[in-house]
Amino acid sequence: MRRLHDPAVRGFASDNYAGVHPEVLAAIAAANEGHQVSYGDDVYTARLAEVVREHFGEQAEVYPVFNGTGANVVALQAMTRRWEAVVCSDTAHVHADEGGAPEKMAGLKLLTVPTPDGKLTPELVDRQAYGFGDEHRAQPAVVSITQSSELGTCYRPAEVAALAEHAHERGMRLHLDGARIANAAAGLDLPMRAFTTDVGVDVLSFGGTKNGLLAAEAVIVLDPGAVLGMTYLRKTSMQLASKMRFFSAQLLALLEGDLWLRSARHANAMAVRLESAVRDIPGVRVTQPVQANAVFAVLPPEVTERLVKRFRFYTWDPHTGEVRWMCAFDTTPEDVDAFAAAIAEEMAG
Amino acid sequence: MRRLHDPAVRGFASDNYAGVHPEVLAAIAAANEGHQVSYGDDVYTARLAEVVREHFGEQAEVYPVFNGTGANVVALQAMTRRWEAVVCSDTAHVHADEGGAPEKMAGLKLLTVPTPDGKLTPELVDRQAYGFGDEHRAQPAVVSITQSSELGTCYRPAEVAALAEHAHERGMRLHLDGARIANAAAGLDLPMRAFTTDVGVDVLSFGGTKNGLLAAEAVIVLDPGAVLGMTYLRKTSMQLASKMRFFSAQLLALLEGDLWLRSARHANAMAVRLESAVRDIPGVRVTQPVQANAVFAVLPPEVTERLVKRFRFYTWDPHTGEVRWMCAFDTTPEDVDAFAAAIAEEMAG
Amino acid sequence: MRRLHDPAVRGFASDNYAGVHPEVLAAIAAANEGHQVSYGDDVYTARLAEVVREHFGEQAEVYPVFNGTGANVVALQAMTRRWEAVVCSDTAHVHADEGGAPEKMAGLKLLTVPTPDGKLTPELVDRQAYGFGDEHRAQPAVVSITQSSELGTCYRPAEVAALAEHAHERGMRLHLDGARIANAAAGLDLPMRAFTTDVGVDVLSFGGTKNGLLAAEAVIVLDPGAVLGMTYLRKTSMQLASKMRFFSAQLLALLEGDLWLRSARHANAMAVRLESAVRDIPGVRVTQPVQANAVFAVLPPEVTERLVKRFRFYTWDPHTGEVRWMCAFDTTPEDVDAFAAAIAEEMAG
Amino acid sequence: MRRLHDPAVRGFASDNYAGVHPEVLAAIAAANEGHQVSYGDDVYTARLAEVVREHFGEQAEVYPVFNGTGANVVALQAMTRRWEAVVCSDTAHVHADEGGAPEKMAGLKLLTVPTPDGKLTPELVDRQAYGFGDEHRAQPAVVSITQSSELGTCYRPAEVAALAEHAHERGMRLHLDGARIANAAAGLDLPMRAFTTDVGVDVLSFGGTKNGLLAAEAVIVLDPGAVLGMTYLRKTSMQLASKMRFFSAQLLALLEGDLWLRSARHANAMAVRLESAVRDIPGVRVTQPVQANAVFAVLPPEVTERLVKRFRFYTWDPHTGEVRWMCAFDTTPEDVDAFAAAIAEEMAG
Repeated sequence: MRRLHDPAVRGFASDNYAGVHPEVLAAIAAANEGHQVSYGDDVYTARLAEVVREHFGEQAEVYPVFNGTGANVVALQAMTRRWEAVVCSDTAHVHADEGGAPEKMAGLKLLTVPTPDGKLTPELVDRQAYGFGDEHRAQPAVVSITQSSELGTCYRPAEVAALAEHAHERGMRLHLDGARIANAAAGLDLPMRAFTTDVGVDVLSFGGTKNGLLAAEAVIVLDPGAVLGMTYLRKTSMQLASKMRFFSAQLLALLEGDLWLRSARHANAMAVRLESAVRDIPGVRVTQPVQANAVFAVLPPEVTERLVKRFRFYTWDPHTGEVRWMCAFDTTPEDVDAFAAAIAEEMAG
Repeated sequence: MRRLHDPAVRGFASDNYAGVHPEVLAAIAAANEGHQVSYGDDVYTARLAEVVREHFGEQAEVYPVFNGTGANVVALQAMTRRWEAVVCSDTAHVHADEGGAPEKMAGLKLLTVPTPDGKLTPELVDRQAYGFGDEHRAQPAVVSITQSSELGTCYRPAEVAALAEHAHERGMRLHLDGARIANAAAGLDLPMRAFTTDVGVDVLSFGGTKNGLLAAEAVIVLDPGAVLGMTYLRKTSMQLASKMRFFSAQLLALLEGDLWLRSARHANAMAVRLESAVRDIPGVRVTQPVQANAVFAVLPPEVTERLVKRFRFYTWDPHTGEVRWMCAFDTTPEDVDAFAAAIAEEMAG
Repeated sequence: MRRLHDPAVRGFASDNYAGVHPEVLAAIAAANEGHQVSYGDDVYTARLAEVVREHFGEQAEVYPVFNGTGANVVALQAMTRRWEAVVCSDTAHVHADEGGAPEKMAGLKLLTVPTPDGKLTPELVDRQAYGFGDEHRAQPAVVSITQSSELGTCYRPAEVAALAEHAHERGMRLHLDGARIANAAAGLDLPMRAFTTDVGVDVLSFGGTKNGLLAAEAVIVLDPGAVLGMTYLRKTSMQLASKMRFFSAQLLALLEGDLWLRSARHANAMAVRLESAVRDIPGVRVTQPVQANAVFAVLPPEVTERLVKRFRFYTWDPHTGEVRWMCAFDTTPEDVDAFAAAIAEEMAG
Repeated sequence: MRRLHDPAVRGFASDNYAGVHPEVLAAIAAANEGHQVSYGDDVYTARLAEVVREHFGEQAEVYPVFNGTGANVVALQAMTRRWEAVVCSDTAHVHADEGGAPEKMAGLKLLTVPTPDGKLTPELVDRQAYGFGDEHRAQPAVVSITQSSELGTCYRPAEVAALAEHAHERGMRLHLDGARIANAAAGLDLPMRAFTTDVGVDVLSFGGTKNGLLAAEAVIVLDPGAVLGMTYLRKTSMQLASKMRFFSAQLLALLEGDLWLRSARHANAMAVRLESAVRDIPGVRVTQPVQANAVFAVLPPEVTERLVKRFRFYTWDPHTGEVRWMCAFDTTPEDVDAFAAAIAEEMAG
């Protein structure tokens, strides 16, 4: 097969526009050849289980899946019974960007709360966490938060701890959608367990694809008492890879050494560089603190229109003109500088 | 990441114990680097659409997905309305091996029929295709067949044509689970379209993983009038890859040249070699014609018990002692000969 | 069976605390004896179809069901495909009081909007009706409104017409949850078709139970082009009565003459009487216009606490102290006066 | 409302073609007037709970629902987790006559077994009860039997005990679809608990409608450890009546005295009378033992064609010409004799 694209083109649309980190491709190749038992009973998946325990504690169990929607829907099914519901922000990916998969595939009701910065608090949770025991209300059973959030913000460990305590006091469990968990760890300069295992998160959707994998995410169960039927639910949710070794190998490439952190730190640094370069451009207003690999800003729509022809990115809110710029493991300082220059140019223009 | 397994070990358990064909890994690498639009709006997916049309006709539309269960469940959802049902063999993978995913994820009722050889006929379909218009009966809307079948047998084009005609006359549609479609084409010595597009198959689950891909299958729609909402259903069914280019690239590696056929022919030849080597061993009874890459045989259970310690494979039916031996793209003649020798040795006791 | 309750006790908790209107019991008795075909092929259901056409126009089709949740979930399923979603107020019964049935039974995503008075407007609809064609968003396909609303307010015909036009322009359909449709007609002093058939409502959940039936509601399809598979969906949704004649007979008792209107007018008049009697009591604040059979008011919580020991009713919003008082077909002026006196007494108290 | 039908016409099509027993109508009237708390917190539902405990033991819990499909689907949901399956006969109502409701509403996979007489045995259960722990197989969790069966046959207590023991040994639970449980008790001349509570049935769908109620069935939980979330599942399954008192009153009318038994004994006696009258008519072959209120027989199709014009009944199996004749609480000896005479006449004819 021939290369059909120009490998020199990069933009700021999404960290999933980026490709695969070379170390990940090498790991896939290393896991190749010969026969290995399918569906997860292979040596790479066994090794991954060890590595995950090193990161997240001895209780942790890992279930590789194909994608983030799969991770979230499998995790939330395993945490709920047929009549239960999930409290989340109305910006949560699971609510806003998964096409209704939780409702359609798992019958899950999502009880949503508006948030200013994509982050829940105990007070915000309580706007939906009520009606326990009332058969007319889908029973709130899980609080789901996203770290780093869809708005590029991060929860401090104490904020997660407060949510976990609050949830647990009400008999609920805490799920963390970690599609960009490595970016959060890099942004907070903390190990991942500092804001998960150590502060009461029960189940984690671990994201790898946005951090340089080809395609691999995992449900990581931090408290096995919080879930039921993980292996069955992964299968019925169409998330069980037959040649699992290659998914586990990708995750191993990320987690066995420090690739997860190197790549995330780099992406975050590029976002900070971009924010620094644009925040003083007249007319550009950065709308969220840059705590991970995203920059949110308000631009005049006509500037956005010109700019997207030069560098691909998305409008986040057409009403306000807010745009989102994502940096990835492969974003270069030169990319950032050229983009910032273009912004300045178009704003002046 | 270090290699953790012995690449020289191969068995006869499943074609998904095999790894990734080197040409496929090369194609993944070729598609890497730089940014490409995610979720399918990339150049590799566009090229794949062209190649699929070359194989299956100008009407054909391709929707890459992660795995075979995903392909089947997305296809069958797109072919049915909320109250409809699917007629299939009781050996069909979608019924027997997908953990109830069609029922659980899509509310699909499967109306099953016993078959001697894994193959439906119009007469067998009619055992379940009745009750049209009766609200007490889930309405039969799709006939689903598997090619090559779960028992290693193949439908001739005329057999598929008869099923398509029969289904269409009753207002039903024909789905073909082609998890091993390349092995069928190789076994029949026909292009794939000869037993799909040309004879009335409406929708196809195209299998790549068992034929040397890392993980990629596709729903191929042969009659666009047979489906509704494909893109939405792929998304809500958690089968939409963000870095789609790498899934399309795998499928391109298979379909752009003749890799799909070379690999399948080789696997089939190995199955024929195995069948030839064992059919005259006293006490071994081959139970199905070898028309693709599977050999089914009855062995004394104690022989099976000893043999699986030397070469991995599965018992298909514990009641009869029937076992299944699968050959893959990487099975060697030496593997087959050593295995056949071991069978003879263990049978001799 | 002996009478176990005191038939003289009535409260203001809900119109479904009331019993069955004597004319309805008589109609059930009239339909009794002898054999009638089950599942709807009986003479009472045939007659009901005629009567419904007289009320709602020649296109109208009626499908009796057991309860309001059933009517809503069957109607919304028939109006949507597997990947579609419903826009409604966040006070809508279908969202707030049905235990998640739409999500759990039908995989429906509800896209909710806060409203001041329980009523949607085209502008409010647009807060959720976007993302058409984007596979990451459950596709908005239906707008669902409640008439009279859960807050006791009514849409004027022009308001419904504007919503219908807005929905239809966007390829969406309009559903009206008419659990209290008769109270709306009485409040507006209009025939039911004036704010349904005549102004573009596509499908209606017709409510009977809260207006004096034992248990019977119906999906009334006003535009047959808006639905698919009604009979199948009613059956699979467990809403198909075997002895249908008795459900149709209840609806006939209501709709053949003017019982529907007499009962609703009476209940509304009692609500108006109550509102008149309490609005000038110091410390009582009526919070919504009384347009049907509900009165909403804010009371000091300690007054509510004492009052509910004397007359049963519900707190609507524990945060604000808002309470809901419902009147039914059997509420008497004496009931209202005694209750108003008690309110005055406890407020003074 | 006027009477629209001829109350003197009765046939042999179904026990749900019959109407409401006068004592049941009287009970509905007795429960009427005044206000009672809705959704089950009323005095009739409380009394029903006592009466059910008298019949089925101190552990028994009763949850009234609208219809049999509702009872079955609520019960089976409460007994299973998201990935589990139900073993039943392929003649089971839940599989053959509920339009796919278990699959569509609850995602339940039904694993079916052919039976000669509608009755499962431990050996037949084992044809589907395997694969425990294998994620590729929907996990068998419940055995569901019907008493009396869809073929009019009854399980003896020892037969149920053997199934219960077998199921429990494998970690499964036993559900009994008792749509005609009273007919079984009458046929066996045993109290209902003799073949339910006393022999290990875990959950029961109690049928009332076919035995003279207007519409009321109940899930009766015999072992509370076998279910989870009954109240929530009844609500989300759209089976929670608001004016519950009238459903409980119907069930009380049946169960508080001996109406359940009187009506069932009568219906059974009419079936026996019919079987006696027809078994010696040349050309009529009775195909199942008459153990409840059904007679199955094979007739020449042309005779059936003429006969159904005079007395309504259904063909059970168009391939064999087998027909089903059902007797109800209101079938008279004169009805039976006239029908038998007509059969003889048409056979001679």
